[in-house]
Amino acid sequence: MIKVGIIGATGYAGGEIVRILHNHPDTEIVWYGSRSYVDEKYANVYRNMFEIVNNICDDGTLEELASKVDVIFTATPQGFLAKHLNEKILNQTKVIDLSADYRLKDVKVYEKWYKIHHESPQLIEKAVYGLCEINRDKIKNTDLVANPGCYTTCSILTAYPLVKEKIIDPNTIIIDAKSGASGAGRGAKIQNLFCEVNENIKPYGVATHRHTPEIEEQLGYAANSDITIDFTPHLVPMNRGILATEYATLLPKKDGTYPTEQEIREIYKKYYEKEKFIRVLEKGAMPETRWVETSNYVDVNFVVNERTHRVIMVGALDNLVKGAAGQAVQNMNILFGLPEERGIDFVPAFP
Amino acid sequence: MIKVGIIGATGYAGGEIVRILHNHPDTEIVWYGSRSYVDEKYANVYRNMFEIVNNICDDGTLEELASKVDVIFTATPQGFLAKHLNEKILNQTKVIDLSADYRLKDVKVYEKWYKIHHESPQLIEKAVYGLCEINRDKIKNTDLVANPGCYTTCSILTAYPLVKEKIIDPNTIIIDAKSGASGAGRGAKIQNLFCEVNENIKPYGVATHRHTPEIEEQLGYAANSDITIDFTPHLVPMNRGILATEYATLLPKKDGTYPTEQEIREIYKKYYEKEKFIRVLEKGAMPETRWVETSNYVDVNFVVNERTHRVIMVGALDNLVKGAAGQAVQNMNILFGLPEERGIDFVPAFP
Amino acid sequence: MIKVGIIGATGYAGGEIVRILHNHPDTEIVWYGSRSYVDEKYANVYRNMFEIVNNICDDGTLEELASKVDVIFTATPQGFLAKHLNEKILNQTKVIDLSADYRLKDVKVYEKWYKIHHESPQLIEKAVYGLCEINRDKIKNTDLVANPGCYTTCSILTAYPLVKEKIIDPNTIIIDAKSGASGAGRGAKIQNLFCEVNENIKPYGVATHRHTPEIEEQLGYAANSDITIDFTPHLVPMNRGILATEYATLLPKKDGTYPTEQEIREIYKKYYEKEKFIRVLEKGAMPETRWVETSNYVDVNFVVNERTHRVIMVGALDNLVKGAAGQAVQNMNILFGLPEERGIDFVPAFP
Amino acid sequence: MIKVGIIGATGYAGGEIVRILHNHPDTEIVWYGSRSYVDEKYANVYRNMFEIVNNICDDGTLEELASKVDVIFTATPQGFLAKHLNEKILNQTKVIDLSADYRLKDVKVYEKWYKIHHESPQLIEKAVYGLCEINRDKIKNTDLVANPGCYTTCSILTAYPLVKEKIIDPNTIIIDAKSGASGAGRGAKIQNLFCEVNENIKPYGVATHRHTPEIEEQLGYAANSDITIDFTPHLVPMNRGILATEYATLLPKKDGTYPTEQEIREIYKKYYEKEKFIRVLEKGAMPETRWVETSNYVDVNFVVNERTHRVIMVGALDNLVKGAAGQAVQNMNILFGLPEERGIDFVPAFP
Repeated sequence: MIKVGIIGATGYAGGEIVRILHNHPDTEIVWYGSRSYVDEKYANVYRNMFEIVNNICDDGTLEELASKVDVIFTATPQGFLAKHLNEKILNQTKVIDLSADYRLKDVKVYEKWYKIHHESPQLIEKAVYGLCEINRDKIKNTDLVANPGCYTTCSILTAYPLVKEKIIDPNTIIIDAKSGASGAGRGAKIQNLFCEVNENIKPYGVATHRHTPEIEEQLGYAANSDITIDFTPHLVPMNRGILATEYATLLPKKDGTYPTEQEIREIYKKYYEKEKFIRVLEKGAMPETRWVETSNYVDVNFVVNERTHRVIMVGALDNLVKGAAGQAVQNMNILFGLPEERGIDFVPAFP
Repeated sequence: MIKVGIIGATGYAGGEIVRILHNHPDTEIVWYGSRSYVDEKYANVYRNMFEIVNNICDDGTLEELASKVDVIFTATPQGFLAKHLNEKILNQTKVIDLSADYRLKDVKVYEKWYKIHHESPQLIEKAVYGLCEINRDKIKNTDLVANPGCYTTCSILTAYPLVKEKIIDPNTIIIDAKSGASGAGRGAKIQNLFCEVNENIKPYGVATHRHTPEIEEQLGYAANSDITIDFTPHLVPMNRGILATEYATLLPKKDGTYPTEQEIREIYKKYYEKEKFIRVLEKGAMPETRWVETSNYVDVNFVVNERTHRVIMVGALDNLVKGAAGQAVQNMNILFGLPEERGIDFVPAFP
Repeated sequence: MIKVGIIGATGYAGGEIVRILHNHPDTEIVWYGSRSYVDEKYANVYRNMFEIVNNICDDGTLEELASKVDVIFTATPQGFLAKHLNEKILNQTKVIDLSADYRLKDVKVYEKWYKIHHESPQLIEKAVYGLCEINRDKIKNTDLVANPGCYTTCSILTAYPLVKEKIIDPNTIIIDAKSGASGAGRGAKIQNLFCEVNENIKPYGVATHRHTPEIEEQLGYAANSDITIDFTPHLVPMNRGILATEYATLLPKKDGTYPTEQEIREIYKKYYEKEKFIRVLEKGAMPETRWVETSNYVDVNFVVNERTHRVIMVGALDNLVKGAAGQAVQNMNILFGLPEERGIDFVPAFP
Repeated sequence: MIKVGIIGATGYAGGEIVRILHNHPDTEIVWYGSRSYVDEKYANVYRNMFEIVNNICDDGTLEELASKVDVIFTATPQGFLAKHLNEKILNQTKVIDLSADYRLKDVKVYEKWYKIHHESPQLIEKAVYGLCEINRDKIKNTDLVANPGCYTTCSILTAYPLVKEKIIDPNTIIIDAKSGASGAGRGAKIQNLFCEVNENIKPYGVATHRHTPEIEEQLGYAANSDITIDFTPHLVPMNRGILATEYATLLPKKDGTYPTEQEIREIYKKYYEKEKFIRVLEKGAMPETRWVETSNYVDVNFVVNERTHRVIMVGALDNLVKGAAGQAVQNMNILFGLPEERGIDFVPAFP
């Protein structure tokens, strides 16, 4: 059994790791870390866990935990892990970080967008960006996984094949993303009260959202060049789910004509046909968040607009599963040589 | 492998049976019955099932199906099964009926409340009322399970120990129940449109709802007498969940005093302590539908009002799981000698 | 023009007073009191008011305000007004209090249920309970209106005629109430976050909710005796609205028979036929919160259950309008001799 | 008093016209047209109107109605009015059409996008496109107003000043729009059931939505050239509201630099400062649908992304008010020489 410690187990992402690992056949959670609820019964914080989890919430140092577990999941505020992580810990245990601390390779970009001083930049190079379907070979051999952001996972996977194959001009990419409210976390803020979120849709972080450089970096690797995009997130009155609607201009082929629907579909198939968790929908069926809820699937599809020579790509996932805890467990499976779908092979629940 | 046929697989309850059985280790669904979507791909009706279920929706006779499967789930309109079921079919296969056709032992009561002529009253006696925690011994030996209604399961289990032990006067029971919209089914009706249900709460079927006689019959068995109750359902703007708030007057003990909180708690424990799927919450923690969502749990608890000598009992379940498909699979497990929790041991998903 | 000051203008009820009075032809708001947002533009707190309200939020003493306005609305936490109000202020201005400080005539009951020491019990006797349809004659002549609670208004008006006319046994009254989330106020609490309220229904304050003694006192006046009831509130995932489902046992008439549907309907008509804001619906049409949203109406109706000799009464209102700000303005209209419906004659918005 | 007839009074837009006109001081509704509910009490269809509207739903010919009223609002399916309207009717009465029948000047474009044969193309030229803030002078003198679509009103007004002033390249415009469910109408369709819309966001009509040519035509007039855009609508789980997030590439100025935030803000002010119903928000405050709900306001704002030289423009309105009934009444006010805000000067209701 893989011994697991979770730091930040009482946030929404942390709670989802608990839910998923509870039924995972190869893991045992031995540490429910929570600074806010230390010494409280975990099941008093999340009553769905009554009679399922009997543990008490712990506080304690990362070092203490490192000696007790095989893997640590950190679902912590930005800057926390960068402050506390060191080589010694990484020699003792594996770390899967759900924060952004090790996602961006250029520490200056991190510090600019997050407005935080990074306290362990020397570890960034060791980290592997845990987008499983793209980086699984590198993930196998690391001790530090930078688990991708929720918006990022959805945004990248939706456009990746067309960027990689130079079907679209990457600098024309515009991502209009929509998220359920669990993405905002469980902090007590007026802006996240029911009456403020319900019966409303709003954009936020326009042109400044922190997931922007993460998307640009990863799609830049695919494009093999630096790219700049527009990314606008919106808050939708629902608990779970991210939908990314992505626009890009098609690049003409050598003969001057534009790629056809069928040609583009072949490219998506080439990249994703064997991927269990990425479903390229049939022509005409657009992704919707309800069809992936509580599952680890990403649904993607696209429409070619022949009038504008743009392609509209759409992706959907559950922000707490493939966008956070599910992908984190998928990364854990890769790290420990388990089948990638072990314990996360959920059928989406509807309605 | 148990071969399963589902009639009514494209309703919400039918869809939930599919979701649950897909991960059940001992079953194989061989028949996706749907009159509305015959010859369509099942995954086109419920796109969450894309790349998971590849079958086509079938229409066909119950007799045809009986020869092919070990068990049939019928999630069909009232009267359908009563019209088509016969002894020959029951000799070939087991039937778990999610409709009300065989729930009420007195056919006159059925015909009065449902306003339908019952076409196979001779089979009613064979049927066992599939409230697993109460009737599991009888269920083992039947071929025809009448799976309880969603409101009914919640209402009965919440009050059962106090009726059985004569702590409350059963004729004072008032059940004020609240349900999510999936209980209304997937029919295209104006009253169930988003804009009609959202931002609203309404009572319906006041003093006339069809689950009333079902509750009265079953709690009557517990009371060992005929009882009459008030039952008022309400529609709540949420997808899943039933909450039953039940009021009853405490019966004084021989010494003229009333049962205490602690005494009543002992009685709940006596009946439910060993029941995996019934969780008696700790004092002060009231059931909420969010804590049981997508799971087979029923959460129950109570408060004694010493000012009025009444007890307020509260129960919560997921209407599609313990209130329909989950309990149906639990019944299947009992019928086939499997561990009762096989395939339905879901951790509730939150949020 | 009536000069108005609002203390607590940035809560949901305070915001609704602003919305209503903005279109009231006889008032001018001169003071937007808010301790949390002092010196901020009111329209930055509630952006719906952009270009409509240009004022800044003030903090300041009740005494200071008293010299500037003709009426003060206090939408403040329990205990605030009791601490600051005095005779001198009441000689200068009228006060309409939306808190509970002066609703209960027996200060001991107040202190027991609210667990607060009342700092101006000598003023309680001066206060008139502002349930307009019942107490309008007394309201005319007071300087201090105790505006009723949201649950209370709905609960009392729904049962009042049947208590008053001794059709029901008042000690059998059970009120199962449901409220939208705006009733919980705008404080930043985890329990009121979108993801905690959405897709959930829960009871709270079972047998202990503070509106209980208020209902008992007022219905006790109608019954002309002390009464004790059960009251259970529930939180519903919607912004606005209260629905009260009320159960009571019918009292047999002298001839031993029970009051009929028609007889009861006549009694409701007798009390409410001339009331603009109380609509007794037609037989079979049950109140729903959506039909009164953003309006000052209370919809009521009932069903007689001949099997149990109980009557199920149902009432619905908008908790921010008739349950708070709308009734407060209705009281203001009465205080200043204006037509009662002035400025609150809203057509309910649907959907 | 202006005598009003409404055809399609029982749809959501029709119902909103009724709500608005009920409090309009200069109108009297004399005809509640509804094919679906003929001879039923209007207040039985929309129970919010109980004791407010006592009329019966009528069916009858447009010609019959034309002789009785001063203005007809048609909130009818596409093609209905084009089939029934003629010059004689327009000589008797004014018509404000909420359908698309007379919005597009080129009948071929109409027939291509709507896939309907237009039966009165000769009347198209007479119609004025009723976008009040842009066309009010033309509206004054017509008898036939083509009331704009909900998405269209929001999309056009948000981008109009920057197109008109050649700040952006109109062919780079990408509009990602989000709508509440009332935009889908009150038809009984599975896709609009509560459980299908709730907890979901989905795109639809990608690259094919019928409001596309309407936006292109109107913004084309502003650009003084034919333009082609991308428009993607999404369905959001809320009752009311449209949010349009619009992207466009800034055109460099003659000196090669790009327009600044401040320069763009000046242009918005130039066009909208005097418009009561268009609110250009302060820098940093982005439009949200909740702040305009139940009102006739359109909120607009923008962000300049200096990294991509694009401007992100955002607009929000209530689809049933400014997006349908409110703008229709605004058009009526213009037609009859009334102050434009008469009867539609609602303060947005929140929450």
